Amino acid sequence: MAEGITKRSEDYSRWYTDLVQRAELADYAPVKGCMVIRPHGYAIWERMQATLDSMFKATGHVNAYFPLFIPESFMKREAEHVEGFAPQCAVVTHGGGERLEEPLYIRPTSETIIWSMYKRWIQSWRDLPILINQWANIVRWEMRTRLFLRTTEFLWQEGHTAHATEQEAREEALHMLEVYRRFAEEYMALPVIKGEKTPGEKFAGAVNTYCIEAMMQDGKALQAGTSHYLGQNFARAFDVQFQNERGERQYVYATSWGVSTRLIGALVMAHSDDDGLVLPPRLAPIHVVVVPIWKSDEEKRSVREAIGRITAALHANLTVKVDDRDNLTPGWKFNEWELKGVPLRIEIGPRDVAKDQVVLARRDTRTKTPCPVATLGATVARLLEEIQANLFQRAQQFRDEHTYTVNTAEEFRTTLADREGFVRAHWCGSSECERRIQEETKATIRCLPLDAEPEAGKCVLCGKPSPQRVVMAKAY
Amino acid sequence: MAEGITKRSEDYSRWYTDLVQRAELADYAPVKGCMVIRPHGYAIWERMQATLDSMFKATGHVNAYFPLFIPESFMKREAEHVEGFAPQCAVVTHGGGERLEEPLYIRPTSETIIWSMYKRWIQSWRDLPILINQWANIVRWEMRTRLFLRTTEFLWQEGHTAHATEQEAREEALHMLEVYRRFAEEYMALPVIKGEKTPGEKFAGAVNTYCIEAMMQDGKALQAGTSHYLGQNFARAFDVQFQNERGERQYVYATSWGVSTRLIGALVMAHSDDDGLVLPPRLAPIHVVVVPIWKSDEEKRSVREAIGRITAALHANLTVKVDDRDNLTPGWKFNEWELKGVPLRIEIGPRDVAKDQVVLARRDTRTKTPCPVATLGATVARLLEEIQANLFQRAQQFRDEHTYTVNTAEEFRTTLADREGFVRAHWCGSSECERRIQEETKATIRCLPLDAEPEAGKCVLCGKPSPQRVVMAKAY
Repeated sequence: MAEGITKRSEDYSRWYTDLVQRAELADYAPVKGCMVIRPHGYAIWERMQATLDSMFKATGHVNAYFPLFIPESFMKREAEHVEGFAPQCAVVTHGGGERLEEPLYIRPTSETIIWSMYKRWIQSWRDLPILINQWANIVRWEMRTRLFLRTTEFLWQEGHTAHATEQEAREEALHMLEVYRRFAEEYMALPVIKGEKTPGEKFAGAVNTYCIEAMMQDGKALQAGTSHYLGQNFARAFDVQFQNERGERQYVYATSWGVSTRLIGALVMAHSDDDGLVLPPRLAPIHVVVVPIWKSDEEKRSVREAIGRITAALHANLTVKVDDRDNLTPGWKFNEWELKGVPLRIEIGPRDVAKDQVVLARRDTRTKTPCPVATLGATVARLLEEIQANLFQRAQQFRDEHTYTVNTAEEFRTTLADREGFVRAHWCGSSECERRIQEETKATIRCLPLDAEPEAGKCVLCGKPSPQRVVMAKAY
Repeated sequence: MAEGITKRSEDYSRWYTDLVQRAELADYAPVKGCMVIRPHGYAIWERMQATLDSMFKATGHVNAYFPLFIPESFMKREAEHVEGFAPQCAVVTHGGGERLEEPLYIRPTSETIIWSMYKRWIQSWRDLPILINQWANIVRWEMRTRLFLRTTEFLWQEGHTAHATEQEAREEALHMLEVYRRFAEEYMALPVIKGEKTPGEKFAGAVNTYCIEAMMQDGKALQAGTSHYLGQNFARAFDVQFQNERGERQYVYATSWGVSTRLIGALVMAHSDDDGLVLPPRLAPIHVVVVPIWKSDEEKRSVREAIGRITAALHANLTVKVDDRDNLTPGWKFNEWELKGVPLRIEIGPRDVAKDQVVLARRDTRTKTPCPVATLGATVARLLEEIQANLFQRAQQFRDEHTYTVNTAEEFRTTLADREGFVRAHWCGSSECERRIQEETKATIRCLPLDAEPEAGKCVLCGKPSPQRVVMAKAY
């Protein structure tokens, strides 16, 4: 167990907060509810950004930047939107030493400011689609905050697309949800369920909200990304019409979709352990750390020479850190880099040099194996792939073991009372039963899974017919 | 001349604003003083970011993210700093529907919030240096704004470093200034003068402020980047001390340095013309545009086949756009891509296909030359290098031709009254003469050049001795 980190089994919530701070991912800021993303945490975000950004561009999206400030009057144009977001907003009332005529809201999301611009840019079907993404900071006033998972200010990307037809917009919303699923599963090694939110849980101003839901190691759900089909709601609010190919004027169809620095929290909660971070190689800022072991100056010389050969043997696209600090013991360094989540460690001492080998230590399984220098490049590449796959499998197995299918009201209540995890149960679709679920169990309906087989059944609360099972869980 | 763009010779200022909007780099936002950076402008910023970010990382810096909000009390800790920045700040007074106990300033620069964190992170000399950079949005309330050059909100990077010794901090400030010079000259093709600001023009809270100054096509100066040696001012304000190797407690030495989206404005103003943008290849979002020419379906087929061979012949690291839209004429497309600043155009019609050649058109010189497909890859690579070099040379020659060395009060006044450009003249160093320069000529002292030979002379205003010439100009 790493120093200064509470054990998961003792207090999962404190374990998380201790770990985030001890691994120097983030720190509390002096402003209530805000955080500082420290270099090690930000390096993970940079890798997430680079990957997502290239996935967005590969699907035809471009980046732009819209203002931080939204006039109060804009927020009020879409009735549901203002109701959902205004109570969470930070408001600027003074600028340049004077009171402003109209207060400015700091963006809690950018639909309104962006659609006020789309109004200017869209006249004809030839101007469509617009496929814009923005990387930006967002402010939502939060009462109870937690590093990465819920903070007053956070970083995110928000896609805002405009389309000529409903079908194209609906396809876009689902297509971006699939991009998020691929990112979560293939890069974060995080299995997710793609689903639709209930009407009560959808984005304020959306027609449909889709999400990916992941399970953390305490069995709680975490919403890892959302994609919204907005219909013509924002086009109507901002009067954005276009002339179609037949010369008729029509309102534009919209989507929006986003993921945030919350994903860093999900990454930590899904894979890490009592010794510190466990990072999937595809998002790890450092792939391999080399820790040399020596006692005499002569040993130091020969080990140093060997390190040159070792790093040359590794693939050029890997980030390799050689920790040759003199004032620290190898054991101290092992702990340090385990805490920081480096997937692979290479240990090399005089006996290894003599045998022309190194020792490879995996962060995920804690196994150590010797490896000849001659085959090191290929072995490291293979092990990093194996670690990536193992983390996914481990998370998937955990999720499967903590997913319960229940059919009766009795089963439903005892399962949610006794166990942590996902509950698959029938729900009639009424907001009344949805409210009762939350009141009685503290769980919420996370989503209506998109790929579930239709299966007739009865609502576990009221007994009325239900066309498919939904996923319920306590959630972050 | 491109449609909708005022000629430079008629009204330089309107030319700039027309061009930025017509080339779809940026648009005015509905919030006073704010802008929207459109995809074509943002793509330039992404290239600037990627280049600078790798230069920062190559010099040992890492990225992090600090909060947007700064408590009012923090701003007040450094006396000069609050005096300089507070009048420009936007202030949040309400959050989550309630009045805040302490107003929050939106960061106009992040020294105060960052040094409040360095206080926690720095105990010993082993914690130093800290070499952190941040990419962020900044708000400074501006009365007179201009797209990219001066807006209420802008994007920038700000480096904030902490050092154990004065010498190391001073070296860092000058080293980053040199990084900025290299970026401006080698990527933006923009010759700059490295210099120091006068005490009256330095950053609020700095000991020394260094800058790079460039000349625009109207002869005005534009400050393209600044680097500050902050001494122990912020360490004292936030009580950041460390234990040195001898066990003594000492205040930490600091630097900060930044460039912003203003650089996009500088890029436009330095190179572009009445037909639109002229972009240096190293920062151009699109390097080469291919415009096919055909009349019959048969021609279309053979030209399309040829395009496949052409794009395959170009280096994989180039961004190539094939504009095969059917509803637009080749001439319309030529204008469009000239407006957007694409450095090289490849034209290909049936006669070119027959000769196994294309026509290459340079954006900077407007020259067209045929080129065999066999040598196209090498020719395009060479021409892009030539364009990059030509833009720099052209800008340098323009600057040389508009730089005047004056020695008497009479020369000084007539030169600044009759001509636009840089004036190299002696200045005694007094703030009284600096004030008179601005009052009498509207020019300001841009900098004391760092690489100037010492040269004794007499102040052009008061006649007192001066150890070196300074650069004066009207400025953006």
